[in-house]
Amino acid sequence: MSLQNVKALLFDTFGTVVDWRGSVTRMGERLGASKGIEDVDWEAFARAWRAGYRPGMAPVIAGDRPWTPIDVIHREILEEILVTFGISEHFSDEEKSDMNLMWHRLDPWPDSVPGLLRLKRNYIIGPLSNGATQLLVNMAKRAGIPWDLILSSDITRAYKRDPRAYQAAIAALGMEPGEVMLCAAHNDDLAAAAGQGMRTAYINRPYEYGAGQTKDFEANSDWDIVTDHIGGIADALGV
Amino acid sequence: MSLQNVKALLFDTFGTVVDWRGSVTRMGERLGASKGIEDVDWEAFARAWRAGYRPGMAPVIAGDRPWTPIDVIHREILEEILVTFGISEHFSDEEKSDMNLMWHRLDPWPDSVPGLLRLKRNYIIGPLSNGATQLLVNMAKRAGIPWDLILSSDITRAYKRDPRAYQAAIAALGMEPGEVMLCAAHNDDLAAAAGQGMRTAYINRPYEYGAGQTKDFEANSDWDIVTDHIGGIADALGV
Repeated sequence: MSLQNVKALLFDTFGTVVDWRGSVTRMGERLGASKGIEDVDWEAFARAWRAGYRPGMAPVIAGDRPWTPIDVIHREILEEILVTFGISEHFSDEEKSDMNLMWHRLDPWPDSVPGLLRLKRNYIIGPLSNGATQLLVNMAKRAGIPWDLILSSDITRAYKRDPRAYQAAIAALGMEPGEVMLCAAHNDDLAAAAGQGMRTAYINRPYEYGAGQTKDFEANSDWDIVTDHIGGIADALGV
Repeated sequence: MSLQNVKALLFDTFGTVVDWRGSVTRMGERLGASKGIEDVDWEAFARAWRAGYRPGMAPVIAGDRPWTPIDVIHREILEEILVTFGISEHFSDEEKSDMNLMWHRLDPWPDSVPGLLRLKRNYIIGPLSNGATQLLVNMAKRAGIPWDLILSSDITRAYKRDPRAYQAAIAALGMEPGEVMLCAAHNDDLAAAAGQGMRTAYINRPYEYGAGQTKDFEANSDWDIVTDHIGGIADALGV
């Protein structure tokens, strides 16, 4: 096993590079205050929104639903949870559309940008995310995430853990699978990448879901790199 | 007409951002010297290689040939011109493949990187090029071109001046056509972009082809911005 062949590092984004829970909670709290909405647990709201994400993609991955952009899936879930939380009537259609863009405005974990800037000097870096290009580029511009390119679900036309998502990213880079490393906080994402011959780095994010976290408290396999911050990947690669 | 709505600036790359003629000439001269090849006009070689580019794409644009990556087209032209210049027998198949990567290693015009760094502070910037993702990301990493994302022919699955190339780029950004500006040294590229509702910036590059240049010595239409260096776009946009 040699990591010297690695030329590109691709990152899962939601949870690995950005803190969706903290970000959506903070935006929700500000929005709620501006609307005079009380008694809403915005952290629970953030987790409920995220909880609909995998079920929302499942029929697309299974081929039972045609290709559907993640913004559409996020919006469908939003409609449901606004009702669940009893606050749907507070928001116009336009306000709901703006609320949906919270997922374009997520803040990075504190170690993400410094770690990525180190890695960018020696490697091609980009997201390999179920987000769409527009979501990922907006997020990166706002947060200063220094991607070299954006590899997203609307480019690969497949959602991870579908093998085609990894294959399409490798093909776009014109590299051998072993020249590309997936960096992620989710063991099943890494397993799917390794299944396509990619290198793997696990970044432990035990607070991603807060009280709702049920897995990914540690590496569950012998990933090439195991760390708890993005700079740890640079340390392991000796850059 | 307002340029205040513009959010993303997309750049033609070959000729507009990078100097393919000077770069391929320099690499050819070095390669020729290392092989003891004399009496080859490497600038003419560079121009001949480039001259095959539009005819090579034409059957793809016309739908007479299935999607063919630009590296394949470049390689086909290379085989022909190595024969034309009488030097084919000097190169192994592997050496020809490496030679083909000259198009991944082009140098920017001197104003490109400084101008793009200015624009990047206020706008999403990326190539909209007939190059492939791997070519464009390799070129950018080597040359320090600070793209936010890569929009390339293998993502749009269309070669410019096919309208679908522009439409797919606008769609990937999730923007209105008038929020996206194409910046190019080629009037016909800008005309195709304007035809899709995009904003336009013309960058005059009268030395792109050297002695072989037959057009694009000046703006031939009332483009939104007309300049002779990329920083001039920043000046015009007031950033």
